[in-house]
Amino acid sequence: MLTMQDALLALTRYWTDRGCMIVQPFNTEVGAGTLNPATILRVLGPEPWRVAYVEPSVRPDDARYGENPNRLQTHTQFQVILKPDPGDPQEQYLASLEALGIDIDAHDIRFVEDNWANPATGSWGLGWEVWLDGLEITQFTYFQQAGGMSLDPVSVEITYGVERIIMALQGVSHFKDIQYASGITYGEAFGQAEYEMSRFYLDDADVETQRRLFEDYAAEARRMLDARLPVPAHVHVLKCSHTFNVLDSRGAVSTTERARAFARMRGLAREVSALWAARREELGHPLGETPALPAATPPATLPEVTGPAPLLFEIGTEELPPGEVTRSAGAVRDALVAKLAGTRLAHGEVTVHATPRRIVLLVDDVAPREPDAERFVRGPRVSAAFAADGSPTKAAAGFARGQGVDVSALERVTVGDAEHVGVRRTDTGRGAVEVLVEVLGALVAELRADKNMRWNDPALSFTRPVRWLVALLGDEVVPVVASTLAAGRVTRVHRTADTPEVEVPSASGYLEFLAAHGIVASVAERRSSVVTDATALAESAGGTIDVDGESALLDEITNLVEQPNAILGGFAPTYLELPQEILTTVMRKHQRYLPVRAADGALLPHFVAVANGSCDADAVRAGNEAVLRARYEDASFFWRADLKVAPETMKAGLARLAFEERLGSMADRASRIARVAGDLGSSMPDAERATLARAAELAKFDLGSQMVIELTSLAGVMAREYAVRAGEPAEVAQALFDMERPRSAGDAAPATVPGAVLALADRFDMLVGLFAVGAAPTGSSDPFGLRRAAAGVITILRAHPGLREITFARGLSVAAEHVRAQGIEVAEETLAEVAEFMRRRQEQQLLDAGHDHRHVAAVLALPPATAAETLAELESRQGDEEFAALVAALQRVRRIVPPETTATYDPARLTEPAEAALHQSLTKVSATLGDGTSDLAEFVATASGLTAPINTFFDDILVMAEDQDVRRARLGLLAAIRDLAAPTLDWQALGTQ
Amino acid sequence: MLTMQDALLALTRYWTDRGCMIVQPFNTEVGAGTLNPATILRVLGPEPWRVAYVEPSVRPDDARYGENPNRLQTHTQFQVILKPDPGDPQEQYLASLEALGIDIDAHDIRFVEDNWANPATGSWGLGWEVWLDGLEITQFTYFQQAGGMSLDPVSVEITYGVERIIMALQGVSHFKDIQYASGITYGEAFGQAEYEMSRFYLDDADVETQRRLFEDYAAEARRMLDARLPVPAHVHVLKCSHTFNVLDSRGAVSTTERARAFARMRGLAREVSALWAARREELGHPLGETPALPAATPPATLPEVTGPAPLLFEIGTEELPPGEVTRSAGAVRDALVAKLAGTRLAHGEVTVHATPRRIVLLVDDVAPREPDAERFVRGPRVSAAFAADGSPTKAAAGFARGQGVDVSALERVTVGDAEHVGVRRTDTGRGAVEVLVEVLGALVAELRADKNMRWNDPALSFTRPVRWLVALLGDEVVPVVASTLAAGRVTRVHRTADTPEVEVPSASGYLEFLAAHGIVASVAERRSSVVTDATALAESAGGTIDVDGESALLDEITNLVEQPNAILGGFAPTYLELPQEILTTVMRKHQRYLPVRAADGALLPHFVAVANGSCDADAVRAGNEAVLRARYEDASFFWRADLKVAPETMKAGLARLAFEERLGSMADRASRIARVAGDLGSSMPDAERATLARAAELAKFDLGSQMVIELTSLAGVMAREYAVRAGEPAEVAQALFDMERPRSAGDAAPATVPGAVLALADRFDMLVGLFAVGAAPTGSSDPFGLRRAAAGVITILRAHPGLREITFARGLSVAAEHVRAQGIEVAEETLAEVAEFMRRRQEQQLLDAGHDHRHVAAVLALPPATAAETLAELESRQGDEEFAALVAALQRVRRIVPPETTATYDPARLTEPAEAALHQSLTKVSATLGDGTSDLAEFVATASGLTAPINTFFDDILVMAEDQDVRRARLGLLAAIRDLAAPTLDWQALGTQ
Repeated sequence: MLTMQDALLALTRYWTDRGCMIVQPFNTEVGAGTLNPATILRVLGPEPWRVAYVEPSVRPDDARYGENPNRLQTHTQFQVILKPDPGDPQEQYLASLEALGIDIDAHDIRFVEDNWANPATGSWGLGWEVWLDGLEITQFTYFQQAGGMSLDPVSVEITYGVERIIMALQGVSHFKDIQYASGITYGEAFGQAEYEMSRFYLDDADVETQRRLFEDYAAEARRMLDARLPVPAHVHVLKCSHTFNVLDSRGAVSTTERARAFARMRGLAREVSALWAARREELGHPLGETPALPAATPPATLPEVTGPAPLLFEIGTEELPPGEVTRSAGAVRDALVAKLAGTRLAHGEVTVHATPRRIVLLVDDVAPREPDAERFVRGPRVSAAFAADGSPTKAAAGFARGQGVDVSALERVTVGDAEHVGVRRTDTGRGAVEVLVEVLGALVAELRADKNMRWNDPALSFTRPVRWLVALLGDEVVPVVASTLAAGRVTRVHRTADTPEVEVPSASGYLEFLAAHGIVASVAERRSSVVTDATALAESAGGTIDVDGESALLDEITNLVEQPNAILGGFAPTYLELPQEILTTVMRKHQRYLPVRAADGALLPHFVAVANGSCDADAVRAGNEAVLRARYEDASFFWRADLKVAPETMKAGLARLAFEERLGSMADRASRIARVAGDLGSSMPDAERATLARAAELAKFDLGSQMVIELTSLAGVMAREYAVRAGEPAEVAQALFDMERPRSAGDAAPATVPGAVLALADRFDMLVGLFAVGAAPTGSSDPFGLRRAAAGVITILRAHPGLREITFARGLSVAAEHVRAQGIEVAEETLAEVAEFMRRRQEQQLLDAGHDHRHVAAVLALPPATAAETLAELESRQGDEEFAALVAALQRVRRIVPPETTATYDPARLTEPAEAALHQSLTKVSATLGDGTSDLAEFVATASGLTAPINTFFDDILVMAEDQDVRRARLGLLAAIRDLAAPTLDWQALGTQ
Repeated sequence: MLTMQDALLALTRYWTDRGCMIVQPFNTEVGAGTLNPATILRVLGPEPWRVAYVEPSVRPDDARYGENPNRLQTHTQFQVILKPDPGDPQEQYLASLEALGIDIDAHDIRFVEDNWANPATGSWGLGWEVWLDGLEITQFTYFQQAGGMSLDPVSVEITYGVERIIMALQGVSHFKDIQYASGITYGEAFGQAEYEMSRFYLDDADVETQRRLFEDYAAEARRMLDARLPVPAHVHVLKCSHTFNVLDSRGAVSTTERARAFARMRGLAREVSALWAARREELGHPLGETPALPAATPPATLPEVTGPAPLLFEIGTEELPPGEVTRSAGAVRDALVAKLAGTRLAHGEVTVHATPRRIVLLVDDVAPREPDAERFVRGPRVSAAFAADGSPTKAAAGFARGQGVDVSALERVTVGDAEHVGVRRTDTGRGAVEVLVEVLGALVAELRADKNMRWNDPALSFTRPVRWLVALLGDEVVPVVASTLAAGRVTRVHRTADTPEVEVPSASGYLEFLAAHGIVASVAERRSSVVTDATALAESAGGTIDVDGESALLDEITNLVEQPNAILGGFAPTYLELPQEILTTVMRKHQRYLPVRAADGALLPHFVAVANGSCDADAVRAGNEAVLRARYEDASFFWRADLKVAPETMKAGLARLAFEERLGSMADRASRIARVAGDLGSSMPDAERATLARAAELAKFDLGSQMVIELTSLAGVMAREYAVRAGEPAEVAQALFDMERPRSAGDAAPATVPGAVLALADRFDMLVGLFAVGAAPTGSSDPFGLRRAAAGVITILRAHPGLREITFARGLSVAAEHVRAQGIEVAEETLAEVAEFMRRRQEQQLLDAGHDHRHVAAVLALPPATAAETLAELESRQGDEEFAALVAALQRVRRIVPPETTATYDPARLTEPAEAALHQSLTKVSATLGDGTSDLAEFVATASGLTAPINTFFDDILVMAEDQDVRRARLGLLAAIRDLAAPTLDWQALGTQ
């Protein structure tokens, strides 16, 4: 059996054999191997560096007294830094797994998008988590920035999670059972420390002491920076960071404290990085500078082709993020079409296919050459080209000389109104290869995704490294060159294939060629294969896959593999006692498994995992099942523990959860929400009011549950589950579930009114409270998610027209009252600021939904529900002439009435027929509408009767009569019309219909 | 080339192959691998544990900005713990050196006594530093106590100094030049950190912050102990300890602070250990309990020998400390002689020989058996044994029955005055083997040294482990058993021999047998071989060895080897520019090399190292030369640096050296010394006073030199050197040298009077100051060396009779004046206490020197010089009847005079002839002596004239006359005699002569 110690030594041997230096773990606590100066400082600057080391990584937050089978306050990372990127780091990595005795042919090993960022040090990179049969065993990152500095060259960072790998290899289900070395288990070697350090981090570390340590370390880091000593400065930043983590695990960090501490640590870390880089430069980069890879050289002569031929252009990459597979394919196809259109090269259909590792462009019938083209080079006007005697002027002669023709060869052409002389020229068409070299080279150089990275290529940039190009016109190589890459006929198939690199004979039949190597290039084909196979597997287990419901997940799965290999796995039916949301959340979000359901929709104890390519299905199934079992075991542990705690008791725990320094704990916040909800819901029917009252008492109690602390996305879900099981009425449970909705843009609004009121109270409190303490969003920073909160209010109010009386103003003012009750000043300007912030959100939301900006402007002052209805009505009135006429009439009224004019007038003064008629019409419409309405349909139906009298009035009447009384009466009449129309919408904003 | 990385991996592989588990370096700064919990906690209790790990060890005090070739703030230890002691740890260790590619046959590898203690954790052990050609490469310790707890089983701790080993193997002379891994040097990998962390530790760490950290860590450790969590408690003790080291390297720790901090850390560490042990016990010792080694079983039957035969008994040990080799040999011989005397076994001469690895007892002509012996068992008295009729009484019958004989067999014997009946019995003599098994077994079991240790044997205890026994009577094995050891005929020769274990055919000729295996068992023979060979080598280099001067070193060298192999080495003559004391201190103390001198006594650039057994002389020479070069390079570096600094400037640096919190810095102390010396020397001749004044200005300036900071034993020596080179007069330089003398008991006193006055001022200030602040020695604790200071005063005053007027009282009172000037209260009782303390020292010193305790008591009140003279005179007067008579007469006077009697009387009242005669004699003697004298010889010469008159007086006169006036006059006369004699000595204390 490979012990953990053997594994560490095997990795050490493997990487030292590949030129890595070994350093020791750092001698102050670090949360990850990345923070060891051998990584975080050495990745900076131009010096090459190859290092490998073990790093026991301390994460106080993961302390579980050694009870949780998979979570430890100190776990073991094996860290590798390859600087510069050697060009084949994935292949080197896979070979390291073989060095550990892992049969990479039998197992399903995948690179699954996972981007890494460490805000505390201003560092980030793009890469993957590596999955072994669904188990995350390694973080693999192309390090792009460290300490806020861009990295050149880019380093490859490989971080093995050693305990996880060993647990999988040894087939044990608790870290304590790992055979650490011959004759001793992990638990025997480290169990007591695990328990005791958990006690320290979770229960016993002294908070005041740790706060003082944080300050002392930060000050020492500051002093060391001022002394220009980046190494001791870094040591103290690390000590700061660990101390912060201790405070955090002791539950002693409020949200603002967190933000402040992070800002401080980030600032220090950035200075450390900048100082280190500067010092290395001053020292003359003692380890030398990494030379840039040389650009590939294009061939001196290009081949010619003789007849039409199909083109294959493959861009070979490392695993693209699933979302980028189809997006990039489309973008590349569009770019190729556009670029070809810029040439005269004739071609047939352009199609594109994509997998995680390749974008395949196929173009039918590419002509062997561009046709020649004639063009007329325009010279001087004829009038200037010839003298009166018809002899050529100097201008004509000069032009002809410039064109290398005799002046007698000048022809004439009319351009616009003028006749010019000129020369007719033939542009010889280029050969297809020449054209394609240019077009395809540019295509690669211009490749971009939403988030791009750099690797060992000095010029390219894309979402993941581009590693090879295949370009064939028929069976001829098109020698495309892009930076260091030169296209050829060698493609790469599965990394575990006997020959992972194969020659492509011809562009013809490439899809079949790939298929023969086990690669399904077509996204659609892969998806349908996933659907078919998964459905069949589900059926074999007596169930089904919700193909429509899992659409997004299916898309993702499809683009995580080059050849789908669906495998049916199972889990113990006992886990079905857990709420289904827990089970499916884990399956979908963490594992990308398709849940299998019975005909009635109930979950079955099965799942479908989709592996990549051929593998030992039993091994892969067993691996995936073990991963799911571990995750469900965690969840069950929390579930059982939580069920022992009454909701009220759980809620009492909220006092220990910090929300914001001045706004207090989550308990304070929950009690404010309860009071705001009570006020906002005071006019509801009794039954609903009772539900609201009870739900308000329990509001947010599940934040105190272990399950929600672990899986925060289950907040609300768990409240409902736990409330029901604690004997609360279903309505109360539902309201608690509802109050967390919508969780994100596109999520459903609360289904019930009490839930909606609680959800509104939640968000109004958050907005008012945080604006009041100066934590409003700025720029791209919105740590508390206030934009999402404002959007939530709008969504809820739109979904619940019955709550129309809860305007922004009322909600904010009620929330302010309770925030003030906590002794926090809330200025009226602050409330105005929040209201404006919310209106801007509403505007953005409506514009994003594709509504006409004039319509949006017209309804922006309306409550969300009304605004939505009005918008719909406006859109249905498009092209409605009667409506257009009404709008025009009302706008005309509005234009002529000075804003300060009041809507009072003496009808007796209105003696002319047109004005008397208008007065009568208005009187009738007003009577019908009552005090003014915001229902556009109703308004239009009634007020359209005013269109003709208004137009007649303006035709016949001079508003600005000399008689001041008359003038006042006429303006008053018009102002009354204006005021009648105003509540419905902002008519002026509609512009000309 | 073996890189450092290769070496670490090779050691890792070697020890894992031998069942060691690998752990990681600890993730908080530790000063040594010992402090990693994998050692310091795991060595406690009965659980077995075998571990190996790398430990970057941080010693802020060793920071040198990376400039010193051999000293680093972080060096790399490779640490191995074998628990229990496997029985052959030295052999396993040597094989590990072979795993590093070291040819242990070619090199001189030795185990040189070095006992390890870490007061900060209450831990200690006995063992060695391992030398590779004179270079200390490993610390090898049998761990005896940790955290104040005795260890059972004992662990073997092996700590490799990796940088040193690699520098030797790679032949580089600066750590930066070590090839760390392929393509990268140590300097390239770690140089910048070395520089920057040096800056932090030496210059930039903030003292106030570090003090606060120390308190916070200590408090957290305290809390964790209270929470019964030894692991986090230990972590915080480590952080405390590191912080203390940082404060120390910043020069911010005063002597009292140090003592207080150590006491605190020691207390915490002990509690951590006790708590860990208790917790492991509560957990049921999860790793099991180490079984005790089984005792060896004695054979059922013992062999018989038939004729007289020589006995060989060899006790085989691991390397004994040199001082123990001869001491133990003598003790063992004495014990054997005594034990044999307790038997009836006849034998010839008992001789003993010893090497570091064996004590060899040889006994000539051991008889084959004890002779039988007769003895008489005494019964009742004859008078009680027989009735009047001569028939045996019940008593006689009972006695006979008890002895198993017929009553008729009783014989008679006279005991004292009484005649008894009894029985004659014969004790059969035991065979020699039986006797020897008992005697030799007991000898081993009772082996003890000054400082003893335990190893894997459950019952034995000695200065180093006993590993084998050879016991042969003639050629017959004597099956001695001692605990787990059973004697046989197998001895061990050099570990590097082809067959390190060999059978001994017979006791006869054992020394020749050993010699044939290259082992010289005779100490004298080894010493004479060292002297002869070293002298010859020195001569070959045109020099000589000072055999008498180096006597102690020669003794040590002799007992560091089993077979001396003297090797002549050299060093660059340029180092001879350094003061010779530096060169010889390094050679003798650090390296045990014999200096080679020219005929005129000047050092030559050569040395003689004495290796053990055969080796590659060139390799060993090169190694030793490299070690010396490195040490001299260090010294040169300090020398050159120091010479650039003027003495005054150096002295200014004393303000940064803390002495004691309340007594201030070393600068404060030096200025007090100067003032005290000025006062004490105020009556000296002008020239000497001027010398004293200048020397006082510079007093202790060399404590600010780098050389003295490194080699503290050179304080004073360097002052003289630097002063001369700075142009100070020779007298001033000598005074500065003198003021540090005597350094220890037996060291010479200052040669000059100004030096002596300074030295006295130094010690009086120290005594008064520290007693005044409550830092007087208690029990065995004397951190400031006040006992040595007091002894120094006595030595100096004895050596300088001219300074007789500087009494304890005067010195202390002058010192007190200047201590008080610093605002510190010095009570008169304190001065009395110091004076008493000094008298007790003087008493002890004199008793230790072998003086009669009555003589000592008689002179104790005298100043040291006088006391010494008086003692000498007293001793020369032994058996002098005239003196004895004088003493008796004076004692008689003293006995009769009440203490309160004053020495005034009216001579007119003395009318009797005897009293008048005494009065006249006294008058004459007084006139001759003046006011009383403390010169015993003079006193006796003169005062002997009083003996007869005193005796006559007492014969003839009744002192207690009835006439009060007469009585008063007679008592006054006697009191005058008493007072005349009193200053000379305490006559009463002499007792009866």
